[in-house]
Amino acid sequence: MTDLTTNPLDSEDDGFHEECGVFGVWNSPDAAALTALGLHALQHRGQEASGIVSLGEKGFRSHKGLGLVGDIFGDARVMAGLPGRAAVGHNRYATAGETALRNVQPLYADFAFGGFAVAHNGNLTNALTLRRQLVRRGCLFQSSTDSEVFVHLIAISLYATVLDRLIDALKQVDGAYSLVALHDGALMGVRDPLGVRPLVLGRLGADQNHAWVLASETCALDIVGADFVRDIEPGEIVIIDDDGVRSIKPFAETSSRFCIFEYIYFARPDSVVEGTPVYEARKGIGRELAIESGVEADVVVPVPDSGVPAAMGYSKEAGIPFELGIIRNHYVGRTFIEPTDSIRHLGVKLKHSANRAMLEGKRVILVDDSIVRGTTSKKIVEMVRQAGAREVHMRISSPPTTHSCFYGIDTPEREKLLAAKHSVEEMARIIGADSLAFISLDGLYRALGQRGRDAANPGYCDACFTGDYSIPLTDLQGHPERKPALLALNGV
Amino acid sequence: MTDLTTNPLDSEDDGFHEECGVFGVWNSPDAAALTALGLHALQHRGQEASGIVSLGEKGFRSHKGLGLVGDIFGDARVMAGLPGRAAVGHNRYATAGETALRNVQPLYADFAFGGFAVAHNGNLTNALTLRRQLVRRGCLFQSSTDSEVFVHLIAISLYATVLDRLIDALKQVDGAYSLVALHDGALMGVRDPLGVRPLVLGRLGADQNHAWVLASETCALDIVGADFVRDIEPGEIVIIDDDGVRSIKPFAETSSRFCIFEYIYFARPDSVVEGTPVYEARKGIGRELAIESGVEADVVVPVPDSGVPAAMGYSKEAGIPFELGIIRNHYVGRTFIEPTDSIRHLGVKLKHSANRAMLEGKRVILVDDSIVRGTTSKKIVEMVRQAGAREVHMRISSPPTTHSCFYGIDTPEREKLLAAKHSVEEMARIIGADSLAFISLDGLYRALGQRGRDAANPGYCDACFTGDYSIPLTDLQGHPERKPALLALNGV
Amino acid sequence: MTDLTTNPLDSEDDGFHEECGVFGVWNSPDAAALTALGLHALQHRGQEASGIVSLGEKGFRSHKGLGLVGDIFGDARVMAGLPGRAAVGHNRYATAGETALRNVQPLYADFAFGGFAVAHNGNLTNALTLRRQLVRRGCLFQSSTDSEVFVHLIAISLYATVLDRLIDALKQVDGAYSLVALHDGALMGVRDPLGVRPLVLGRLGADQNHAWVLASETCALDIVGADFVRDIEPGEIVIIDDDGVRSIKPFAETSSRFCIFEYIYFARPDSVVEGTPVYEARKGIGRELAIESGVEADVVVPVPDSGVPAAMGYSKEAGIPFELGIIRNHYVGRTFIEPTDSIRHLGVKLKHSANRAMLEGKRVILVDDSIVRGTTSKKIVEMVRQAGAREVHMRISSPPTTHSCFYGIDTPEREKLLAAKHSVEEMARIIGADSLAFISLDGLYRALGQRGRDAANPGYCDACFTGDYSIPLTDLQGHPERKPALLALNGV
Amino acid sequence: MTDLTTNPLDSEDDGFHEECGVFGVWNSPDAAALTALGLHALQHRGQEASGIVSLGEKGFRSHKGLGLVGDIFGDARVMAGLPGRAAVGHNRYATAGETALRNVQPLYADFAFGGFAVAHNGNLTNALTLRRQLVRRGCLFQSSTDSEVFVHLIAISLYATVLDRLIDALKQVDGAYSLVALHDGALMGVRDPLGVRPLVLGRLGADQNHAWVLASETCALDIVGADFVRDIEPGEIVIIDDDGVRSIKPFAETSSRFCIFEYIYFARPDSVVEGTPVYEARKGIGRELAIESGVEADVVVPVPDSGVPAAMGYSKEAGIPFELGIIRNHYVGRTFIEPTDSIRHLGVKLKHSANRAMLEGKRVILVDDSIVRGTTSKKIVEMVRQAGAREVHMRISSPPTTHSCFYGIDTPEREKLLAAKHSVEEMARIIGADSLAFISLDGLYRALGQRGRDAANPGYCDACFTGDYSIPLTDLQGHPERKPALLALNGV
Repeated sequence: MTDLTTNPLDSEDDGFHEECGVFGVWNSPDAAALTALGLHALQHRGQEASGIVSLGEKGFRSHKGLGLVGDIFGDARVMAGLPGRAAVGHNRYATAGETALRNVQPLYADFAFGGFAVAHNGNLTNALTLRRQLVRRGCLFQSSTDSEVFVHLIAISLYATVLDRLIDALKQVDGAYSLVALHDGALMGVRDPLGVRPLVLGRLGADQNHAWVLASETCALDIVGADFVRDIEPGEIVIIDDDGVRSIKPFAETSSRFCIFEYIYFARPDSVVEGTPVYEARKGIGRELAIESGVEADVVVPVPDSGVPAAMGYSKEAGIPFELGIIRNHYVGRTFIEPTDSIRHLGVKLKHSANRAMLEGKRVILVDDSIVRGTTSKKIVEMVRQAGAREVHMRISSPPTTHSCFYGIDTPEREKLLAAKHSVEEMARIIGADSLAFISLDGLYRALGQRGRDAANPGYCDACFTGDYSIPLTDLQGHPERKPALLALNGV
Repeated sequence: MTDLTTNPLDSEDDGFHEECGVFGVWNSPDAAALTALGLHALQHRGQEASGIVSLGEKGFRSHKGLGLVGDIFGDARVMAGLPGRAAVGHNRYATAGETALRNVQPLYADFAFGGFAVAHNGNLTNALTLRRQLVRRGCLFQSSTDSEVFVHLIAISLYATVLDRLIDALKQVDGAYSLVALHDGALMGVRDPLGVRPLVLGRLGADQNHAWVLASETCALDIVGADFVRDIEPGEIVIIDDDGVRSIKPFAETSSRFCIFEYIYFARPDSVVEGTPVYEARKGIGRELAIESGVEADVVVPVPDSGVPAAMGYSKEAGIPFELGIIRNHYVGRTFIEPTDSIRHLGVKLKHSANRAMLEGKRVILVDDSIVRGTTSKKIVEMVRQAGAREVHMRISSPPTTHSCFYGIDTPEREKLLAAKHSVEEMARIIGADSLAFISLDGLYRALGQRGRDAANPGYCDACFTGDYSIPLTDLQGHPERKPALLALNGV
Repeated sequence: MTDLTTNPLDSEDDGFHEECGVFGVWNSPDAAALTALGLHALQHRGQEASGIVSLGEKGFRSHKGLGLVGDIFGDARVMAGLPGRAAVGHNRYATAGETALRNVQPLYADFAFGGFAVAHNGNLTNALTLRRQLVRRGCLFQSSTDSEVFVHLIAISLYATVLDRLIDALKQVDGAYSLVALHDGALMGVRDPLGVRPLVLGRLGADQNHAWVLASETCALDIVGADFVRDIEPGEIVIIDDDGVRSIKPFAETSSRFCIFEYIYFARPDSVVEGTPVYEARKGIGRELAIESGVEADVVVPVPDSGVPAAMGYSKEAGIPFELGIIRNHYVGRTFIEPTDSIRHLGVKLKHSANRAMLEGKRVILVDDSIVRGTTSKKIVEMVRQAGAREVHMRISSPPTTHSCFYGIDTPEREKLLAAKHSVEEMARIIGADSLAFISLDGLYRALGQRGRDAANPGYCDACFTGDYSIPLTDLQGHPERKPALLALNGV
Repeated sequence: MTDLTTNPLDSEDDGFHEECGVFGVWNSPDAAALTALGLHALQHRGQEASGIVSLGEKGFRSHKGLGLVGDIFGDARVMAGLPGRAAVGHNRYATAGETALRNVQPLYADFAFGGFAVAHNGNLTNALTLRRQLVRRGCLFQSSTDSEVFVHLIAISLYATVLDRLIDALKQVDGAYSLVALHDGALMGVRDPLGVRPLVLGRLGADQNHAWVLASETCALDIVGADFVRDIEPGEIVIIDDDGVRSIKPFAETSSRFCIFEYIYFARPDSVVEGTPVYEARKGIGRELAIESGVEADVVVPVPDSGVPAAMGYSKEAGIPFELGIIRNHYVGRTFIEPTDSIRHLGVKLKHSANRAMLEGKRVILVDDSIVRGTTSKKIVEMVRQAGAREVHMRISSPPTTHSCFYGIDTPEREKLLAAKHSVEEMARIIGADSLAFISLDGLYRALGQRGRDAANPGYCDACFTGDYSIPLTDLQGHPERKPALLALNGV
C-alpha cells in the first residue's frame, strides 16, 4: 500500500524501504495468534503499524495499532478480542506523514453481501486516477491509501459473487500487489500478473485438520512451524476454504518480473525466495563483486546488518579477512533528536560505531548493499577514516540505483538519487572513498544463476537500475502533482 | 444523531438525555474559537464528545475529541490548527457503547465537487432502511451513526449543486433534524419540516463586516456576544454566504411540532426558545402544578438542578417556603464505581445529599421535572426521609412519561418507563412518597400560554406523554431488531 | 498542607480556596471504599489530587492520583489494591505549580518502629524554619510540602512510642492543623490548640462491631451513613483502636479560634459545623446584611453557587423576590484557554451566564460571599448590566477581606486584596456597582448568635478581616522570601 | 545499583544482565546532550530507565524516564530543560519489579551545603545493614535502591566538605561501585578499592576550553568524540573542576579485581577495557576454545549477537567455515506475550530464527558466551536440529557459571544455575547437544594474556566461576531474607 497524500519521493531518509508484509491463516483455533507471530517475522517489511482482522462465529473483529507487532499484539486481552479460525494481518512501513489509524490495514468493509477484509503489499500505479472516478460517482473514501480503491471497486461491481467482484476489480487496477483477503467463506491470496511482490503458501499440521497459511516470505512460515508448499504464481488467485485450495488465473499469461531488490536487501536472509535462499544469493553476489572489482586490502568490513552476507562472500573469494569493524547499536529509540547544532553532525553514529581496534592503520574494504542519496555512505566512510583506516574502498552489492521505484518500495525521487546524476568516479569522491565499485547488472544476474541479463526477457523487475518499467505509470502521466486535495478528513 | 449499533432504549440510566448541540459561524476571524465557546454553552446538550471543522484558505481542518469542550479545545495549538473564517461544531451525548472518534461529528466528506461538513441534532427514523439500500448500491459507511446517510445521499445525488443535492437528500429522510453544514461557498442551517429540534440565527457585530451564527439555543449566542435574529423556521433552509442570508422552504407547509420537553428539561434556563424564556416557562409550570395539586406542607424543596425554577414557582403560588433541602455535588468524576456490595446502595448519594437541618421534622414537597424509571425518585425520597422528613410529597413538572422518544432524545424503551405500566397511585407507592402528582397535559399547555392542548393541532411534539408520533417510525416497522450486523469496522 | 515552593500569595486566581479535606476510618471491611466516598463528599475542600493509604494484614498500601476522587478511585482494581480495616485519605487543592505526585498526601514513612501515614489540613507557620534545621541535621526531604516536617520530627524524636513522638513533634510546630494519622495500632485525629480547622468524629453501625470515622466535615459522615458523635476539640488528640476512643490534651488550655470563613464560604451548606448548620448560618448572614444595608430593588440575585443561601435570607428579610438571574455552567473543563485576544474578555462567562429575562429593566441586588481581587465581581456586574439591568447593587456576606490567610486558605498577598487598599466607595466604583455594602464584623458575629465581636475573646479566627493573627507567623519574620532553593528534585 | 525490594536472584530470565551505565560531563555547553549520547552508547548496560541531572546557572535540573535513552531524551524541549555546563547520567537495567521513577538515577539530594547528584554502577553488599541503622537514626528513605545509602551517609556525616563527607560515606560501604557525582563545585568519579566495575576518563576538545568526560566504557567517549585519557584506578576519586583533574586515593592499596565477565559478555565489542580491545579479547577466547575443545564439524555458527567474535576466532583457529546459521530479529517489542498454550513453546523463536539453508544436513558448532539456566541453550539447540542439523556441538566462551554475582550483575540464585548442580556431561544431555565444552579457567586467563589463573592474585573478579568472593557479603550473613519490610511507599 502507499499513502496517496504523501509523496513517497519526498522522504529525507537515505535508503530503500519495503512498504508492507502480509499474512493470513485459515482453519486454526489460534488464527490471530499465528498471524501476530507471522507479522513479527515480517517486521522488517514494515515497522510503523500493524493490524489483524479475525473472523469468528460472531463475525469479524479488528485490532490495529502504531508501533511494533509485539507491542500492539502482546496483550492477552487484545488477542482474546480476536477470536476465530481465520485471520489476515498487515505490517506497514513508517512513511513520513499520515500515521492515522484509519490508514492501517487490513482494510475492512461491510458490503451488502457480507464483510470483507484485505491486506495489500505493493503499490498501484493508477490509484489516483481510479479514485477520482470513484469519487465522482459518489464513493466516499475513508483512508488516504491506494489500497482502498480495491474495496470500492468490489463494492460497486455488478457481479454477484465475491470472487467475480474481486476479479472485476483486479482487471481495473495497474501496479504491483500481493493481496491476502478474507470473507465469510474463504481466505484468498492474489499476486499481480507480473508477480512483482512475493507471496507464499504454507501448511501447518500434518493431519487432516491442518491449517493453511499465506505469507510474504518463508521466514513467516518458519516462525509458526508451517511447511512451505509453494509460491503463489504471478497472476494467480488462490481460494482457500474448508474444501482445500483452489487456483484461478484470470489474466493472460505473461513473463514474470519478480523484484530483484528483494534478493539484494528486502527479504530476510533466512527466507527462501522463488526457490533461492536469500543468504546464499547475497554471499554469491559478494563473491561476484570480489571477482569483478577486487582490490588489495587488509580487511573486509560489512556495513551492518544488511551488508554482512555479501561481505562474507567477498572475503572468501578475495582471501581477505572478514572483521566486524563497524558495530551496530540496536537500541536506537524512535525519536532521537540531536538537540544542538554542534552535535548534529554526530547523526549516523547513533546507529553505527567504529571498532577502532580493527580499523586502525588498515586498508579497509567496506561492503554495503546500495547507495541511495549517499549521505549515509559518506558518514560511514568518514567514521572509518576517523578510526584510523589507511584506505577505504567501498563495494556495493547492487548496480547503481538510477531510477525510482513505483511498485511498492519507498525511494527518493530520481533527482535525489546519487547515481542518477553522477558517475561512479564522482560518487567515490562525494562519499570520500579511495575507490568505489558496484556489481554489474550482468554480474548480479550471474550471481542469481543466469548467464547475465536477457534484455528481451529479464525475468526480474530491475527498473530501479535500468528504468525498464514493466507496468504503466498511469498516475504520473498528466498528473504531475501526486497529492490529492484533501481526503477523508472525517476519519480524524 | 444516534448510534445505530446501540439500542438507545437499552440504557440503564434513569433520565432523559438530549443527544446533541450544533453551532456554526460564517465570516469571523475567530470562527473556530467562537464555535468552541458556543459548544461550551451547549455542553448540557451532549457531554461525551465534540468536534469542530473549520474552513480556511488551505481548505477544511478538523479536530475531534472525547470529553468536555473545554478539555478538547482548551489547547491553543489545537485552535491554531483550525484556521479560517467559517466553522461548524457539534456536541454529542454519552451513549453507552460506541465512543469511537469516527462517530464524532461534524461528519466530513470529500465530494467530487468539494468538501462538505455537517453536524446533526435529532434522529432519523428511516436511517437503517436507507442505509441498507445505500450499502446494497455499493456505498461504504464509515461510522455507525444515523447522520451518515445524509452524506451518502448527497454524494450520489444526480443534482448538480450542493443545495439541490442537499434538498434531494432531505426529501428522502424521515425524522427530526436540525443541521448545520459548511461547504466551500456557504454555511447552511436546516430544520426538519415539523421543527422538532431548535435552531436559531444570530448576528455578531453591528458593522458591515458582521459574522453570522447558527446555534441550537440562544444561550450559545449570548456567550459569544451575538444578537438573536430569529428562529430558523420548521422546514426552512438558510444559506449564509458573503451576500447575506437566503431562505428556502423546499417542503410543503405543515403545522409545526416543537419538542415540548425542551421547555421542561432540556434547554438551558437562560435560553429563549421560540420566543419564550425557558426559566419563566418553568416557573409557570411550577405555579400551575401548585394550583392543580396543592398539599399542606412546611417547605418546598427542588431536586437540583433541574427542578429549581418549577419549585420556585410552586413555592410562590402555594405560599410555602422554598428551601435548598437537597445539595448537589458537582464534582462527580466520570467513572465512580462503588467497589463493594455493602456500599453500592449509596449510589445516588454521590450526586445529591440531604440538608438535614432543612428537612428534619418537616412536611416536604419535592419538585422534580420527570419520572422515567423511578429509581432516582425512589432514592431521593428515601434520602429525604432518612434526613428526618415527616412527610414527603412529590410533584412533577411534566405529565407522566408513557412513551419512548424517537426524535433525538435518549429514553428507555416503553416497558421500562414507570408511567407506562403503573397508575399514579402505584407510582407513589413504588417511590415511597406520601403523595405524588404530575402536571396535567392541559396544565402544561396552559403554562405555555395556550388554553390547553388542542388535539387537532397541538403545536408541540408531546409523543412521550401521548404516544402521538407525528413522524413515521419507518425503521421500527418490520425491523424489530435495531442493530445492523457489523458496521464500518475498518475505522477501528 | 501547603506547597513551600510556590508562593500561595502569587496565584492569579480571584477567590479563596480551601486547601484540604481529610478522612479516616477504623474497623470497617470497606475502609478504603468509605474513605473514597468521604473524600468525594469533601471534594469542595480540594480538587487537585487525592490519596488513600490503607492498612491491611500485609501492611500499608497506597494509591494517589491527580484529579477528582471519582476518577482516581473509581476503578475496582484500584480499590482492590487497598485492602484492610483502616484507612486515611486526603484531598488537595489545585495550587498553581507543583502538582507532582510526591506532594500528594497522605504522607507515608517507614519508621524504625513501623509504618506511619498522615494527612494534614491547615498550614504550618514555622515549616520553613523547621525544615532548614532538619536539613542541616541530615534529614532528606521528599516533597515540597510543609506537612513533611511532621514526619521528620517524628522520625528523629527520642521518645519511644508513636504517641509520644507525635506529641513531641506537635509541640515544635506552629500553625493550623487538623491531622488524621494511621499506624499499626491505631487511627489518630489531632486538632491544633486553637482549633482553626475543623475535624469531627462519627460512628458507623449501631452494633458492637461498629467503625469509627474522622472527617473534616459532617457531610462526609452523612455520605457513608455514619452518625455524628462530636467535634474533636481544639488541642485534642483522639486515639482510636480496638479498645475504643481515648482522648489526650497535651497542650495548655486556651480559648479557641475556629475559622469564621468556614461558615461564610468553605464548608458545605449541608454540614453542621461546631453545632451550627452552615446553611442556616448563611441565611442568617443574608438577613443581617439586609437589615444593615437595605436598598430599594426589584429582585435579589445570588452569584451562584456560594451566594445562594445568603441571597435567600436577604430576599426574605427585605421582601424582595429571589430570582436565579445568573446561571452557572458546571461543565467547565480543566483547561479552557481562550485562544485569541479578541475573545479573551469573555473569560468569566465560561462559568456564569446572565438570565436576561430576569434582569432586563430591573433594579438588581447581587449577593456574593466575598470580594478578593475584585476581578470576578467586576465581570459579573458588567455581565448583569449588559443583560439590561437598570441598577446593580452588590451586597457581600462577609466583611472586607483586608488581610491574607496563613492558616490554610489560599489567598493572594495583601497588596492584591482590593479591600486592603480601597474604601468601600472606591471598590463600588472599581467593580462598577451602583452601590456596594459588606456585612459588618459585628453583624457577622450577631448572625452567628453572639452579641457582636468580643475583641478580648472573639472565639473565631477572623484574621482575614481584622489582621488579628493568633498564631505567630514565624517563617515570615526575617525570611521575606518564602521559596526554598531547590527541594527534593530527586522525586522527579 | 540494585533494587532492595526485589530479589535479583528471583528473575525468571535466562541470562546475565549488567545493571548500569554511568556518564558525566564537566565544562561543555552541550553537557546534557553529550550525556544523552553517552548514555545511548551505554544502552547495552541498562535499558529500563535513564536519567540526567544537569547543573546550570539556576541550579540543578533533572529529567528521568522509563524506556530507551533515545525515547526519553529525544525531545528538544526535554533537552532545553537541562541547561548547564555539567551533567551526570545513568542507565538502569530492567529488573522485574520496581520500575518506579523514584528508583531511577541519578539520585539527587538537597543537602544543607547544596545540591548533590550521584549515579551508581555496581552493588553494595552491606546496603541493607546500613539502611536499617540509618532508619533507626531517623533517616527517611525515598527509593528502594541500595545506592540511596550513599546519599544519607553523606547527609549525616559530621565532616565539613563534600569531599570529606563522600570519603566518610565510602569508608562505611562494602561492595562494588563506580560512581559519577556532581555538586556545585565539581564533577567527581569514584571506583571501589578493588575496581570491580569500569570507569574511564576522557577529554573532549584539544584547546584550553576542553571538556572532561567520565564514562563506564570507551565506546561512550567515542560517540561524543572525546579522547580516551585513562582508566580511573581502583580506589581512586577524581575531582574535576575548572582547575583540572585532581586525584585522591583514600583507601589502602590492594590488588585489583576487575570483573572478568565484562570481557566475555557485558562490555561492547568496540570498547577498550583496561587496555585490551574487547573484540580482540573475545576472538582470542574463541581461538583458545577451539584449541581446548576442537571437534570435527562442517560449520561454526554463533548465537547472535554476543557469540559472534568468539565464533570468528574459533572458526579461524579450527579452519571450519563461519556462517550465520541463526538470524536475530531485532524488532522484538517490550511486551510480546504468547496468547495460548499451544503456541507458547514458540518462545525463543521471537528473537532467533534458523537459517535453514546453512544448517540442513550439517555438523554444526554453536558458539555462545555462557549458560545460565540452560533454557535458552536448550531452545537454540532444538531449533538448529529442527532446521536439519546432523550434529550440534555447543562451545561456550566462559567457564561454567557456578555462583551468583553480588557485585552488580543480575544473576539467578545459585540453585538455578545449571552448572552449579550438573556436570558438563549432564548439561550437554539437558540442552540436547551432541557435545558441550566450556573454556577452562586457565584458558580464559591465557586468552587475556596471562599464563593462567594465579590463585594468590588472580587480578580479576571471577567469583561467578570460582566462588572466590573478594568483598564481604555482609547483608547475606544473618539476614537470609533479602527483602526489607516495606520501603518508601510514599513515593507512590
